[in-house]
Amino acid sequence: ISSFHKSLYVSSEPLGPNIPESRNYKGIAISLLVIVAVCSLITMSVFVLTPVELPGAANSRLTVLDLFKPEFSVHDPEARWISDSEVLYRNRDGHVIKFNFALNETEMILRNSTFVSSFSTTDGVCSCLSACLCVLLCVCLCFREVWELNPPEVQNAVLQHAAWGVKGQQLIYIFENNIYYQSDVQSNSLRITSSGEEGVIFNGIADWLYEEEILQSHIVHWWSPDGERLAFLMINDTLVPNMFLPRFTGSPYPRSQEYPYPKAGQPNPTVRLLVVNLYGPTHTQELVPPDGLKGREHYVSMVKWISNTHAAVRWLNRPQNGSFITVCDATVGSCVQKHEEASDLWLTRQNQEPVFSKDGSRFFLTIPVKQGGQGDFHHIAMFTKSFRSDQNDARHLTSGNWEVTKILAYDEGEQTIYFIGTQDSPQKRHVYSASTIGLFSQRCLTCEMNQEACTFFDADISPNKQHVILQCKGTSLVSYFILDNNMPLRAALEIKKISKSLNQPPSLARSLSLSLSFSPSPFRPSLSDGGPGSQSVSDEYELGWDSVLVSCDEVIVARLDGRGTGFRGLRVLQQVHQRLGTVDVQDQIAALEYLMTLPYIDRARIGIYGKGYGAYLTLMLLRSTALIKCAAANSPVVDWKLYASAFSERYFGLTSKNDNRYQVSSVGLVLFSKTICETNWCFFVLFSANVHFQHSAELIKHLIKVGANYTMQLYPDEGHFLSLQSQQHLSESLVGYFRTCFQDFSTPLPEEIGKEDDD
Amino acid sequence: ISSFHKSLYVSSEPLGPNIPESRNYKGIAISLLVIVAVCSLITMSVFVLTPVELPGAANSRLTVLDLFKPEFSVHDPEARWISDSEVLYRNRDGHVIKFNFALNETEMILRNSTFVSSFSTTDGVCSCLSACLCVLLCVCLCFREVWELNPPEVQNAVLQHAAWGVKGQQLIYIFENNIYYQSDVQSNSLRITSSGEEGVIFNGIADWLYEEEILQSHIVHWWSPDGERLAFLMINDTLVPNMFLPRFTGSPYPRSQEYPYPKAGQPNPTVRLLVVNLYGPTHTQELVPPDGLKGREHYVSMVKWISNTHAAVRWLNRPQNGSFITVCDATVGSCVQKHEEASDLWLTRQNQEPVFSKDGSRFFLTIPVKQGGQGDFHHIAMFTKSFRSDQNDARHLTSGNWEVTKILAYDEGEQTIYFIGTQDSPQKRHVYSASTIGLFSQRCLTCEMNQEACTFFDADISPNKQHVILQCKGTSLVSYFILDNNMPLRAALEIKKISKSLNQPPSLARSLSLSLSFSPSPFRPSLSDGGPGSQSVSDEYELGWDSVLVSCDEVIVARLDGRGTGFRGLRVLQQVHQRLGTVDVQDQIAALEYLMTLPYIDRARIGIYGKGYGAYLTLMLLRSTALIKCAAANSPVVDWKLYASAFSERYFGLTSKNDNRYQVSSVGLVLFSKTICETNWCFFVLFSANVHFQHSAELIKHLIKVGANYTMQLYPDEGHFLSLQSQQHLSESLVGYFRTCFQDFSTPLPEEIGKEDDD
Repeated sequence: ISSFHKSLYVSSEPLGPNIPESRNYKGIAISLLVIVAVCSLITMSVFVLTPVELPGAANSRLTVLDLFKPEFSVHDPEARWISDSEVLYRNRDGHVIKFNFALNETEMILRNSTFVSSFSTTDGVCSCLSACLCVLLCVCLCFREVWELNPPEVQNAVLQHAAWGVKGQQLIYIFENNIYYQSDVQSNSLRITSSGEEGVIFNGIADWLYEEEILQSHIVHWWSPDGERLAFLMINDTLVPNMFLPRFTGSPYPRSQEYPYPKAGQPNPTVRLLVVNLYGPTHTQELVPPDGLKGREHYVSMVKWISNTHAAVRWLNRPQNGSFITVCDATVGSCVQKHEEASDLWLTRQNQEPVFSKDGSRFFLTIPVKQGGQGDFHHIAMFTKSFRSDQNDARHLTSGNWEVTKILAYDEGEQTIYFIGTQDSPQKRHVYSASTIGLFSQRCLTCEMNQEACTFFDADISPNKQHVILQCKGTSLVSYFILDNNMPLRAALEIKKISKSLNQPPSLARSLSLSLSFSPSPFRPSLSDGGPGSQSVSDEYELGWDSVLVSCDEVIVARLDGRGTGFRGLRVLQQVHQRLGTVDVQDQIAALEYLMTLPYIDRARIGIYGKGYGAYLTLMLLRSTALIKCAAANSPVVDWKLYASAFSERYFGLTSKNDNRYQVSSVGLVLFSKTICETNWCFFVLFSANVHFQHSAELIKHLIKVGANYTMQLYPDEGHFLSLQSQQHLSESLVGYFRTCFQDFSTPLPEEIGKEDDD
Repeated sequence: ISSFHKSLYVSSEPLGPNIPESRNYKGIAISLLVIVAVCSLITMSVFVLTPVELPGAANSRLTVLDLFKPEFSVHDPEARWISDSEVLYRNRDGHVIKFNFALNETEMILRNSTFVSSFSTTDGVCSCLSACLCVLLCVCLCFREVWELNPPEVQNAVLQHAAWGVKGQQLIYIFENNIYYQSDVQSNSLRITSSGEEGVIFNGIADWLYEEEILQSHIVHWWSPDGERLAFLMINDTLVPNMFLPRFTGSPYPRSQEYPYPKAGQPNPTVRLLVVNLYGPTHTQELVPPDGLKGREHYVSMVKWISNTHAAVRWLNRPQNGSFITVCDATVGSCVQKHEEASDLWLTRQNQEPVFSKDGSRFFLTIPVKQGGQGDFHHIAMFTKSFRSDQNDARHLTSGNWEVTKILAYDEGEQTIYFIGTQDSPQKRHVYSASTIGLFSQRCLTCEMNQEACTFFDADISPNKQHVILQCKGTSLVSYFILDNNMPLRAALEIKKISKSLNQPPSLARSLSLSLSFSPSPFRPSLSDGGPGSQSVSDEYELGWDSVLVSCDEVIVARLDGRGTGFRGLRVLQQVHQRLGTVDVQDQIAALEYLMTLPYIDRARIGIYGKGYGAYLTLMLLRSTALIKCAAANSPVVDWKLYASAFSERYFGLTSKNDNRYQVSSVGLVLFSKTICETNWCFFVLFSANVHFQHSAELIKHLIKVGANYTMQLYPDEGHFLSLQSQQHLSESLVGYFRTCFQDFSTPLPEEIGKEDDD
């Protein structure tokens, strides 16, 4: 669930009724936002008895307006390798720069104005350009002319996708769910598929389910390295029921956008994997699933070319507890099974691409490996063709109660594998190397790289494995060739009182990860996207609306990664199997109770915020505890039967036999205690993107029934992502809501007074 | 616009930050709700310097919960004449009672349990029963058996309507927009139409436009007095664009209900008026519009049988500035024009049924009549066949700067006409008689009927014109045969501190009608439904959520009937022609300014509330004045081009040539000053019933753009009327909103403090 976010506790110190007079930010208490979170910010605001005053701390307070100023945004240079010594990236001004670090030369390849002026009217080439920004930019630049991509057969069709291929001027584009190919920009277009039908059969681009839940990409076609072959999915949604999203504004009558969306237990799309041969006479070959899945419902969850003729494919059954990796010969369509996984619960990391050796005889994959009594953790396994049997021989290169999050590259010459792991702490990401021979000796490449240590890295290794682009996603990077040090952001933050964060209060259990943010300190832990397997407490940098509360309102933000979160082993992750919203809610409550013991927490003013899955947890928490006074749920999921098949079925199983589990884990409107949002005050944000408005509608109907006390906000006609304006409005609304709610709980409500008079 | 309501100003006294301690209801100021309204409550809450204390006033405060208790509802006995000395009505327990006042005998005709038990499973007969509740009840009771109404040709069709005819056991019912007839309950059904098609062609029942905007009734068929003929409309919506209402809850995928809805300037339904002969061989005759409307777009706005063979019909052109009354001979289909009306602005009272003498030679109608320099007022005209010409001779029976609201009956023997009028005051309704001969001498029948004077009556005159059922819709009725005196309501109100109302503060102009309600007094003026021609300030009783504010929160409610409202002559009414939201808004502002001069008004805390048309005025007011701090708009209309053709075109004309007028009168998002809902705080209620969600969506998008400060409430999947639960929730929300908002404006916002610190 890519739009799923987090939940968050909030509360604030007892300001008393004389707010304006007595509000002295220096002398008084700092209230805190405490985020507990399985992918869920949970903010508690609390009374700090001992005022925290850092010497030299900046005094300007962060506002919501600040968050949307350019200087407060992180600039990502999107750097990519174009040769072993050259990197292409976009600088802060938007110019595209080629940087040769061997010669220490930079060259401006494309001015920022180019994007605006030359290409603004030519949607076709322009979207082609942005898709090929890095490696193929030069090809774009050779041709200052404009061609219109428009297949002769189709009138007024909307271009769905266009991109360069991998060789020369190869072009691919998609209209009306059909793929078109040109060998160069001036040649005739070749129609590769004809089965495409809008909203029914998708060739080379994904339907909703594949884009959001299976492959996390709109693009579902893959070039062979030599550009001779194109593998693509044909996704057939004929039997999938349609969902509709009404669009209210901009026309006299509202329009309704329909798209196939399989809810839990509904018919899924069927999928076929095809390979078309583009050189010589076009010929399309189907790659078939292994025997174990033939005739059974399945997903294709990964496709990767490992040579010019062979592709590795992962096939996953519908319950998502069994999968196969096969290597298929695209010339004849035959597939050989290389690896099989099964789980009693659900399989993780089904998008992961194995890293193959050049000859294909060896590959690397992270798989769950038992670590003594601590359960399974994801570690690198090296699979080599066994001499004894048809099966591969697996050797475990890493081990321990930490996880490998990503395999970066395999250097065959040095017999070394590069990867990112959490060996230091589940909150950190460092780049490691491990030998694939001998004792598999392992080394951390980024742990002691410099003084001002960055603790959260992403990396991109050069083709010849001699260099690496390191991206610090944490709070610091002072070293080597710096493409962008985000100085404007650093400068902007320096004068703001933001938050000091404390990642692991000592007395909490090791299996939970808790962070507290309070004023003042420039950075706070990152928020990741939600759902099981995600992480809220890490060193990744993020600055959100809750920072405003921390900066201005004496609030502590606490986040918790408890059971159900990722990067701390499968035992922690998979405890939510078939019971989302139970053990993870218990962990949130445990964290809350721990926080209540801290001397600076105001117990009367605890708030919570969550989005998507986090909003679901927020609602479950409201049901389970009376500690929370202010709650905000953003796009809450209320009933898992109304959510996507691939997501709901992964955690609950198929609906046919598991209806009861769905029942128990739904927000269970019938079970809702009458007190929800009655003694406390709730705030809901609804939008009809990924989590359909249906959930909110069911919730509202129930809240009306029990006479709950809540307000809401709505962003009509917004798509999957909110517009900047709406994001800003939402941030203001959330800050305003928590501010008012905490203020309200500092004084008895006037209603209470009326009631006393009543008889 | 039948769901349109009103707007309302609110504000409250400066309670200061120490709310709980200093809140003393006896000693302090009373804040007031002041409603100004063209069909619009406008509530201002104000500081009363001289505490109002009535001796012996009840002290218990009215709560929202109270409003929904049975004892706080008005019981309407729905009394009807069944003979010259017998009345049928439903008593407070739900039993149906026959009352013979000549013999002073009552008889229970039907126990309340009957409705629940015997008929609960038989939708057909049950809805038939409720439709015929009064006169034909006995017929129902003779047959304790159950027949199922189901036409043989139609499978699983939903019954749309069923009712008795006028003679014997005649039955009519409608399936799939086709009319079926049975001469008695056991006979075969006869299909009268076959053109019906769901959502396209409607026979005998109305499409959305006719039901809501033209005839105000779902039923568009009319029995001749002898039951031999049935006149009905065939409404053809083939060319009308469909609107859809999404329904989100109750099924895995939301459903969308589509229905034809012509917005301003869009194709309208076409209409044909047909008469079917039911005795002997069925024969259908079309009644055609007069020559002046042939081939031009028109509405049928009234059909009334005046004999067994003749019907009076009113035909209205699409711009609604020209209409004709014809009398049609249903046996041959020929029509004779009897009356013609035209207006430079728009025609009023187009549903009004003329009252004919038995022989049809004479009829009575209220028409606008010039009253010296004061403009036109609705008065009774008597039309008699002229000896000089083909045209009728018209004589005006009443005159003066007041209006006849309804003609009740014509007693040919006594040569007397009975009617309801506003001679006393535009806020009152009394029953009058006038002679149709001589000097047309006139008498008020209810003005001095009793001590505890009721000032707002409705009346139903017995068939022989000897008796009348009087219904007091005001605050008092102690006289004659009392069917229900609403004692439980009186008792319930007695112990509550409600409001004292003051209808006409002396210094305000005569053309405006203003009422103030403040605590404590049991009744306050009524609210009528909105839109031009409606009335907010009258003596009709109503108890709403704003009474809670008056009772508990020291708020004064003020309502204003200014230009655009009804019952005070056409000059007042029609000043809003082509400029809704201009002069009526000016009147609201004038009233506001007047109220600001009163010593007990807190100028810092003025609020406003409006619904439908009133919500439109609320938004226009927010644009025009900075006086208002708290505003609530319920189902606002934002753009008249998105509203129904028949409504918008009546006031603005056809869109083709009047686009500019629509532009000017739309809430004009482009013109919106940035301050709307920024310095003040707004609250919106959205539902997708009559005023489509489109309006709210446009509004929200704009509010997000300007960063407005507002909250909202949403009632998903509610129909035209809110469920009781939702009504209660909405009342709580509104009371809570104004309470909090007034409180907020008594102290600076914490945000302001944060901003001061900012640099």
